[in-house]
Amino acid sequence: MTTHKPSATLESDPRVKAVFDDIRETRKTDFINNMWRWLAVDPALLERTWREVKEVVVTPSSIDPLTKEMIYIAVSVANNCSYCIHSHTAAARAKGMTEAQYGELLAIIGLAGKTNQLATALQVPVDPVFDASLQNG
Amino acid sequence: MTTHKPSATLESDPRVKAVFDDIRETRKTDFINNMWRWLAVDPALLERTWREVKEVVVTPSSIDPLTKEMIYIAVSVANNCSYCIHSHTAAARAKGMTEAQYGELLAIIGLAGKTNQLATALQVPVDPVFDASLQNG
Amino acid sequence: MTTHKPSATLESDPRVKAVFDDIRETRKTDFINNMWRWLAVDPALLERTWREVKEVVVTPSSIDPLTKEMIYIAVSVANNCSYCIHSHTAAARAKGMTEAQYGELLAIIGLAGKTNQLATALQVPVDPVFDASLQNG
Amino acid sequence: MTTHKPSATLESDPRVKAVFDDIRETRKTDFINNMWRWLAVDPALLERTWREVKEVVVTPSSIDPLTKEMIYIAVSVANNCSYCIHSHTAAARAKGMTEAQYGELLAIIGLAGKTNQLATALQVPVDPVFDASLQNG
Amino acid sequence: MTTHKPSATLESDPRVKAVFDDIRETRKTDFINNMWRWLAVDPALLERTWREVKEVVVTPSSIDPLTKEMIYIAVSVANNCSYCIHSHTAAARAKGMTEAQYGELLAIIGLAGKTNQLATALQVPVDPVFDASLQNG
Amino acid sequence: MTTHKPSATLESDPRVKAVFDDIRETRKTDFINNMWRWLAVDPALLERTWREVKEVVVTPSSIDPLTKEMIYIAVSVANNCSYCIHSHTAAARAKGMTEAQYGELLAIIGLAGKTNQLATALQVPVDPVFDASLQNG
Repeated sequence: MTTHKPSATLESDPRVKAVFDDIRETRKTDFINNMWRWLAVDPALLERTWREVKEVVVTPSSIDPLTKEMIYIAVSVANNCSYCIHSHTAAARAKGMTEAQYGELLAIIGLAGKTNQLATALQVPVDPVFDASLQNG
Repeated sequence: MTTHKPSATLESDPRVKAVFDDIRETRKTDFINNMWRWLAVDPALLERTWREVKEVVVTPSSIDPLTKEMIYIAVSVANNCSYCIHSHTAAARAKGMTEAQYGELLAIIGLAGKTNQLATALQVPVDPVFDASLQNG
Repeated sequence: MTTHKPSATLESDPRVKAVFDDIRETRKTDFINNMWRWLAVDPALLERTWREVKEVVVTPSSIDPLTKEMIYIAVSVANNCSYCIHSHTAAARAKGMTEAQYGELLAIIGLAGKTNQLATALQVPVDPVFDASLQNG
Repeated sequence: MTTHKPSATLESDPRVKAVFDDIRETRKTDFINNMWRWLAVDPALLERTWREVKEVVVTPSSIDPLTKEMIYIAVSVANNCSYCIHSHTAAARAKGMTEAQYGELLAIIGLAGKTNQLATALQVPVDPVFDASLQNG
Repeated sequence: MTTHKPSATLESDPRVKAVFDDIRETRKTDFINNMWRWLAVDPALLERTWREVKEVVVTPSSIDPLTKEMIYIAVSVANNCSYCIHSHTAAARAKGMTEAQYGELLAIIGLAGKTNQLATALQVPVDPVFDASLQNG
Repeated sequence: MTTHKPSATLESDPRVKAVFDDIRETRKTDFINNMWRWLAVDPALLERTWREVKEVVVTPSSIDPLTKEMIYIAVSVANNCSYCIHSHTAAARAKGMTEAQYGELLAIIGLAGKTNQLATALQVPVDPVFDASLQNG
C-alpha cells in the first residue's frame, strides 16, 4: 500500500539520475532504497533532501556516525515513521551498533516516552535553573 | 500553570524521603528538580521511575552518558515535552555537550522530522533488505 | 499568548448566546470556560462541538462520567494539549477522582507511553489472535 | 489486521442504511469506502461523523474543495494516519491535484515537520507581535 | 516487517525463561504474545517492563481492570501504536467490554482528538480556575 | 523559558548577517523574528533552513501563498508547535486569510484530528482503490 507509484524510468530525468549517481558514489553501492525512488516524485525535493542528508549525516562532524543513527532512530520512533525506523535501524547495525547498545537504546527511548507523558500529564513547571534565558551569557 | 500542587511537606512521607535522599546521594547535590517533587503524588510511581532512571541512565553501560542525554533530548523534542527538553538539554550541557554538538543534534532532529513526514506522506514501502525477519539469524 | 482574541461582546451573536445559555443550563453554573469563548470564532464550529460534547460526554451512557474524564485526560496527554489536560483533570476531580486514582491513571499513561514506543521501535508483528478479521463473527 | 470486523449485513440496521444511502447520493457513486463500514460499529458515531463531513468538507464554502483535501492530507500525515493519508491523497487527485502541486504539498509538509521540531527543540519564545491578545480588536 | 528477529531458543536464557514462566502463571495460559518475545532482545528491559505491567495493570487497585484497558487503548491510539491498539482492544474485550462501550470509547477518543487540535490551534489560555498552583492545598 | 540564549551580537558573524540581510530584503522589513535568531546557534543550520524556506514558501509556485500558510498551520497544530502556530497564523492573516476562512480551517483541522483517531483506533484496512501501487501508471 502506497500513495505514489514511481515511474519505471525514473533515471530518464537527468536531475533524478544525477542524485542517484551521487548516492551510489557516496555510499559505494548500486542499491538505491525506496525513499529516494519515491522522493523523485519532485526532483527539487529529491535534490534538497539528499543534499541535506549529505551535509548533516554523511559529512564527518562532532557527532560520530553511529550516534547520529541512534538519534535518528529515536526521533523516528517518537514520530512513528515505520519506514524510517526500519532503514535507520539497519543503518545503525551496518555502522557497528551492538545488540547491547540496541537494547539500551530501546530502554532509553521507552523511559523517555514514559517520563515525557508523566511530565506532560502533571504539567510540571520548568525549574528556573533549566531556563537558558536566565543564565549568564 | 500546573495540574498538581505538591504538598509543602513532601518528605514527611518516608517513601518519598528515601527516594529524594537517594537522588541527592547519587547526584551529589541537594537540588531536587520539580519532576521528582511532582511524581511524589504517587510514591510507588516515584520509586519505580527513579529506579528505572538509575538503571537506564545513571548506571555506566555501552552507551556513554552524553549520548544518552542527546537521545533523551531527541525523543523529548519529537514528543514535545517542554519540561523534558529543558531538563535534558541542561543535563547534556552539564555532561560536556559543546555548542557544535548541540547545533548538529538540532540539525539531525530537524532533518529526521522532515524525512519522517515525507516517508509517511508517501507511504514508502519498506525495502525487503531492511526487514529483520528475512535475515539469517 | 494566543492566536485569537475573542470579541468583548460575544453574546451579541444570537447563535453564540444560545450555545452559552445551554452550557450554563446543562452545567448549572454561570461560568463559561475559555474553550467555548475561543470556539465562538466560528458559530457553526461552536454549535457542532458543543452538541457533540453533550451527546458523547454529558448524556448518561454505558461508560460512567468519571471514566470518561480519565479517558479524555489520557488522550489529551498523549496529544499534548495543555489546555485540555488542565480542564479535564479539573473535571475529573470535580467528578470524584481520588488522589489514588489520579496516581494510578498517571502510572497507566506513563507505562502505555513506554510500551507504545517499545512496540513501535521493535516493529513487533501483531499476533494473529489479536486480528479481528480472523475471528468468527 | 484490524480491531473490528463489520457485520456482513450492515445495512439491515436502518440508521446505517440511511447514512450509506446519503453517502451514495451525495457522492454520486455506489462505492462505500471502509471508513464508513467500520464506523457503523456505533450508528450514532457514524451519523455524527458523516453529518460533520458533509458540513465541513462537502458543503461549498470559503475554502475550495482541493485546498480542503490538501489541508486534510497535511493533518493526517502529521498525525500519521495511514488510512487517512491514502484516502485523502486519492480524493485530492480526484479533485484535480496535479503532480506539481503534490510535490509542493510534500515539500511544505516536510519543511514544516523540520521547523516544528527545531522551534520545539530550541523552545523559541513567541514574538509579541504574533500574540493576538496584544493586538487591537 | 520488523526490525528485530527473536532467537528460536529464547528460553535457553534463564532470565527470559523466568519472565515467560511468570507471565504464563499470572495469566493462566501458555500463550506468550509477541511483545514479550521481542522485548527479550534485552533481558533487563524485559524484566523491568513485565514487573511494571504486573504492578500497574495486573495488581488490583482503585481503577478497575476494564477501565485500565480502555485508558491503555486511548493512549495507544493517540500515540498511534498499531500493535498496542490490537493487543489492548483484544484484552478489553476479554475483560468484558461490550460493543456499546467500545462505540462510546471510540466516540470519546475521536472527540478528544478533535478538541485537542482545536484548543492547540487557537492556543486557548488556561482558565485560572484550572490551575492547581492557585488552589488551596 | 527557553533552552538557548542567543548572543547579543549575532550579526558579528558574517554568515548570520548575510542570512538576516537576505531575510530583510526578501520580506521588505527590518524585523527578524525569534526563530531565525535562535537558529543562528548553528550558522550552517540557519543557512540551510532559510534557503529551504525561500525555495518552498517564498518562491511563487503552483500552490498560492495563503494556501501554503494554511497547510503550514495545519501541520504545526498536529505537531503541536506553539511557536509555529503563532507565527504562521499571523502570516496567514497578513496574506489575507479572512475570519471565515480561519473558522473553516479550524473546522477541517478538528475534523481531521477526529477521523484520524477513529481510523487508527479501528485500524481500518485501506481500500484497494486508494493504493497507488495497484493503479495503472
